[in-house]
Amino acid sequence: MSDRKEFRDLATPEAAREAIDDLDLSPAPETVPLEDARGRVLAERIDAAIDVPGFDRASMDGYAVRARDTFGADEADPADLDLVGAVHAGAAPEVTVEPGTCAEISTGAVMPDGADAVVMVERTDEVGGDPDAEGGGPDRIAVRTAVAPGDHVMSAGADIAAGARALGPGTRLTPREIGLLSALGVDEVPVAGKPRVGIVSTGDELVRPGEALDPSRGEIYDVNSTTIAAGVEEAGGEPVLYPHAGDDYTEMERLLRRAADECDLVLSSGSTSASAVDVIYRVIEERGDLLLHGVAVKPGKPMLIGRLDRGGSEAVGESDADGDTDPRTGESAYVGLPGYPVSALTIFRTFVAPAIREAAGQPEPATATIEGRMAVGERYGEGRMRLMPVGLLDLNDGDLPLVYPVDKGSGATTSLVEADGVVAVDPDTEYLDRDERVTVQLFSPDVRPPTLLGVGEDDPALNRLLDRLDAPRYLPVGSREGLRRLRDGVPDVAVVAGPTDRDVDAVDLGGWAREWGLVVPEGNPAGVTGLADLVDGEMRFVNRPTDSGLRRSLDDALADLATDRDASRGDLADRIDGYELTVRAFESPVRKVLAGDADAGLGLRETADRLDCGFVSLGEQSVTVRAAPDRVERDAVEELADALNDPTDLLADLAGYSRNSRNDP
Amino acid sequence: MSDRKEFRDLATPEAAREAIDDLDLSPAPETVPLEDARGRVLAERIDAAIDVPGFDRASMDGYAVRARDTFGADEADPADLDLVGAVHAGAAPEVTVEPGTCAEISTGAVMPDGADAVVMVERTDEVGGDPDAEGGGPDRIAVRTAVAPGDHVMSAGADIAAGARALGPGTRLTPREIGLLSALGVDEVPVAGKPRVGIVSTGDELVRPGEALDPSRGEIYDVNSTTIAAGVEEAGGEPVLYPHAGDDYTEMERLLRRAADECDLVLSSGSTSASAVDVIYRVIEERGDLLLHGVAVKPGKPMLIGRLDRGGSEAVGESDADGDTDPRTGESAYVGLPGYPVSALTIFRTFVAPAIREAAGQPEPATATIEGRMAVGERYGEGRMRLMPVGLLDLNDGDLPLVYPVDKGSGATTSLVEADGVVAVDPDTEYLDRDERVTVQLFSPDVRPPTLLGVGEDDPALNRLLDRLDAPRYLPVGSREGLRRLRDGVPDVAVVAGPTDRDVDAVDLGGWAREWGLVVPEGNPAGVTGLADLVDGEMRFVNRPTDSGLRRSLDDALADLATDRDASRGDLADRIDGYELTVRAFESPVRKVLAGDADAGLGLRETADRLDCGFVSLGEQSVTVRAAPDRVERDAVEELADALNDPTDLLADLAGYSRNSRNDP
Repeated sequence: MSDRKEFRDLATPEAAREAIDDLDLSPAPETVPLEDARGRVLAERIDAAIDVPGFDRASMDGYAVRARDTFGADEADPADLDLVGAVHAGAAPEVTVEPGTCAEISTGAVMPDGADAVVMVERTDEVGGDPDAEGGGPDRIAVRTAVAPGDHVMSAGADIAAGARALGPGTRLTPREIGLLSALGVDEVPVAGKPRVGIVSTGDELVRPGEALDPSRGEIYDVNSTTIAAGVEEAGGEPVLYPHAGDDYTEMERLLRRAADECDLVLSSGSTSASAVDVIYRVIEERGDLLLHGVAVKPGKPMLIGRLDRGGSEAVGESDADGDTDPRTGESAYVGLPGYPVSALTIFRTFVAPAIREAAGQPEPATATIEGRMAVGERYGEGRMRLMPVGLLDLNDGDLPLVYPVDKGSGATTSLVEADGVVAVDPDTEYLDRDERVTVQLFSPDVRPPTLLGVGEDDPALNRLLDRLDAPRYLPVGSREGLRRLRDGVPDVAVVAGPTDRDVDAVDLGGWAREWGLVVPEGNPAGVTGLADLVDGEMRFVNRPTDSGLRRSLDDALADLATDRDASRGDLADRIDGYELTVRAFESPVRKVLAGDADAGLGLRETADRLDCGFVSLGEQSVTVRAAPDRVERDAVEELADALNDPTDLLADLAGYSRNSRNDP
Repeated sequence: MSDRKEFRDLATPEAAREAIDDLDLSPAPETVPLEDARGRVLAERIDAAIDVPGFDRASMDGYAVRARDTFGADEADPADLDLVGAVHAGAAPEVTVEPGTCAEISTGAVMPDGADAVVMVERTDEVGGDPDAEGGGPDRIAVRTAVAPGDHVMSAGADIAAGARALGPGTRLTPREIGLLSALGVDEVPVAGKPRVGIVSTGDELVRPGEALDPSRGEIYDVNSTTIAAGVEEAGGEPVLYPHAGDDYTEMERLLRRAADECDLVLSSGSTSASAVDVIYRVIEERGDLLLHGVAVKPGKPMLIGRLDRGGSEAVGESDADGDTDPRTGESAYVGLPGYPVSALTIFRTFVAPAIREAAGQPEPATATIEGRMAVGERYGEGRMRLMPVGLLDLNDGDLPLVYPVDKGSGATTSLVEADGVVAVDPDTEYLDRDERVTVQLFSPDVRPPTLLGVGEDDPALNRLLDRLDAPRYLPVGSREGLRRLRDGVPDVAVVAGPTDRDVDAVDLGGWAREWGLVVPEGNPAGVTGLADLVDGEMRFVNRPTDSGLRRSLDDALADLATDRDASRGDLADRIDGYELTVRAFESPVRKVLAGDADAGLGLRETADRLDCGFVSLGEQSVTVRAAPDRVERDAVEELADALNDPTDLLADLAGYSRNSRNDP
């Protein structure tokens, strides 16, 4: 163990990649039915076991002939052949074509004995016989063309012959290869196994989605297990979720060893608490082999790479009946991922997914990376590689897609869907310029950049509007911050509610008006009539942050009240219990009121009505959608403008909403 | 029905697309468990039902404090706070932080009452207490920095607030969206249903892979059902395979109507025989609605588009309990595909897959098309659109991939894997120039162009060699045709066996020698000693085609014998029974001998030994791998050359093989 200390220093990303490459994740090949084989990879070469076709096959509807009998025939001087019978697809020929005769034949039918060519029906005429009589067909066929031996005949094995190489090992099975295997009669295929990847999530605070959550105990839903499981599937592995481990050593050890016994690779992920990480660290050191601890990337410092002993002792280990003494049969690979979701997915995507794909025999997806250009400059100088989460916006202007950093703090799960991938920023790079070309490693090969990027206020009518667009991305950062970002040139549109003090060059696409005020419990038990009750009474209030348009309208109303009273707005604000308590979304204050945590909240008539609360109106405010001038001709922006042209549908049934949108409050 | 006649003329491809677009394939939305949701598409918007996080959450390990208590603190003058307890992740706080106190807190833990900020542990010192005593921690904490309210705290709902829009309808669920849904506690999601697509294959001659085949009855394995089923899956539909229908009207009608009852779309495919097509045509006309018959594309003339009545009568039709009287609930969509596999897949890919994707809510795959340049000129002038099957070769030289037509006749199933997609050639385009830029519609989004394109002789050692390369494509067209294609500039390498008369500029990468001769039944019962026995005896022989290097060596040997006898080679050839009977692959003649269909076959000692036949040696011939001079530096060609540098492994256990390769026979 003395040689482990060196790993305590952060390893380079290359060393981490090599350490993972050295782990053996490869599962045994398996045999799957052909109908389940799509997307799998052949474990060995498939040679044809039969001739295809298995017989000399007519490739046209017409007449089977001896080619020699047609030599010299043409339109002017057809060859007359006696019709001796017919051969249909799927039936054994019951006739022999002797010199001077022919047999009717269907596409796909077996060439009858004696015949060596087919004349297309279009180049023949029926001669003789009585077509109106029962069973009365022609008794001769006039052939108006000469054919050579083999014409319109696919000879046995001409497509592929028995013994020939059909598909090589490592071939990925798409519908086309499945077609060829079908033609060969193959109904099950040997494919590379899917590496089994055990996912052990740790931390006393984690609860599986669907189960009850107790936020007062600090419980949160487990994000990493399902995210990483989906990533494992995407990379061609088979995820196995294990029950949560708490921060207890014995339980963690038991779970990790069970996972090691059952899987090719064990991933731990979940808790960010130092104690859980410490416990995992101890288990790996004592019950396995820690190869690497900490990598010089951001995020990823807490990454662990190692091996976990299987079985617990040689006595119950993998049987070595075949004399295989490779020590790796006794160990499973292990990688510990960071706890925060974006960090975990980033490290998984960068270091682990390639190893799973390799073990599954799957190629790197063609769409795994995309070239883009920085939409803004970005400074960085920590001296280790940074895997910077970024969002993408393709302006379809012939230029590369825009790339903008997404940094809400790694603890935010919403940044999972606000970022599309990561840009690996070299330790030596201190600054990325605006318009600099960068390579984005997409989080998944099926990531689609959004068609529209919007920012600004949150609003129920806006939610409906967004539902009508194809793949928009909307960041509800508030009106004020939305305008700032619009000015900085990244988003297409900003949605602004209420009064603004920013002067940003933008095109007004339209909007609506919404009634705002105080949301109170049903029936307004305290008899609130206006803002003065908050200032003068003993009520608990819940507010919205200063970036919100609702807050701006509230502050203006408070300023008016202050003017009336010859006081300052700050004085009045100080007297409101909860003025500083801000919550994030338009529905949040109403929920606080419903939960009995507040007597009044800043909100919309719409929300109060919908959630059966009382409402004290303080006014109307406009909500406008403003586009960056250079984006108004983008398809998605035009679609947005069209929808805003007549917002009647959008506003239907929304209490307090009207088409009367104005840019001033 | 009088308005149907107009459809008898070929419809334009645009009209076919519109007719399919007008069909309603959309299934009802369904709810799936989150773990099965990857790749599905949200049927409706998902709003957050809870705040994430659900509580004010420490985002660092450290101490929970009242920020005001730290104001003015710095390294020189820390603030000393009484330590009143600890809060861990996943536990309810049992302490309250009163002024002048603090509580130890872990990342992810609930902020205790009274505290409004966290000080990182790195900016604190423990003070007092006796660390060696039982339970003896510090009793005070020196805080060496000032923090503001909210520092290192993620407030409840800051990630996403209850009521906020989380994901819009139509969102494709990748691991990232699954992560966000997990965070929201969602364990099942409403997604767009997968359109059920019934596949009815027709034709008396079709047998399912895995079942026994009787080639004497003209039976072949059903290729289209499995190929199209895989394509349906890939497009986001759910394929349902129906039992084979023969060419009988009643059975076909029963099957098509059952499929219509159970599916959103019915595809028929399989037989190319005119009678089967006629039967389908009648069923659709009588039991449904034929919208379009025949499209002006090649292939695709036999394509049918229509609707099929459900149930058989209104009495047993879909229940209209919800008052839905839309006539489409009583019909299923129907498309009839051509019978040949490449044609069926081409028409499916071009016309049907987009409709399935649309109904499943799936976007067009990003990799559905690829730009390339024609490797050869191609003439065409039939006046209807041609969907030309092509292969791709990416030279990775910065230029577009090479595109070459693959036309083995649509009946060939091997062209499924020899083509990568189709180029749609406009009816007005009569000629595509070499180097002309074309757009290739890939057969599937996961098609990978091969890394190497080889052509030429087939050989068992070559098969091993190919197995070692990553995704090569090899077309066993024979030595002579291989050299011709090498000269024309498409493939990277040609493999040439035996004597050649073509002078092609190429780089010899190496090769081997193989022993060839006559393969006879085990023990050589007829006592064959050489070619003279074939000429003079009453033996049935089986030959290889003139493109094969084995045939060239045989013909040379026959010429030598003719010279000895003062005869012509042709005279001797005429006296060999079966000289004109050629079979395709190196193993094929041996199989004929094994089956008792021939007394001797042209072949290799290797094959004779492996399949336990007798062998009469007629000589050795060289097999050489020759590269196009401008391709020798490609990775795959260099890899090939490396493997040929020491072919010992390649030739191990191959009877009659040696390293003694020469270019002359």
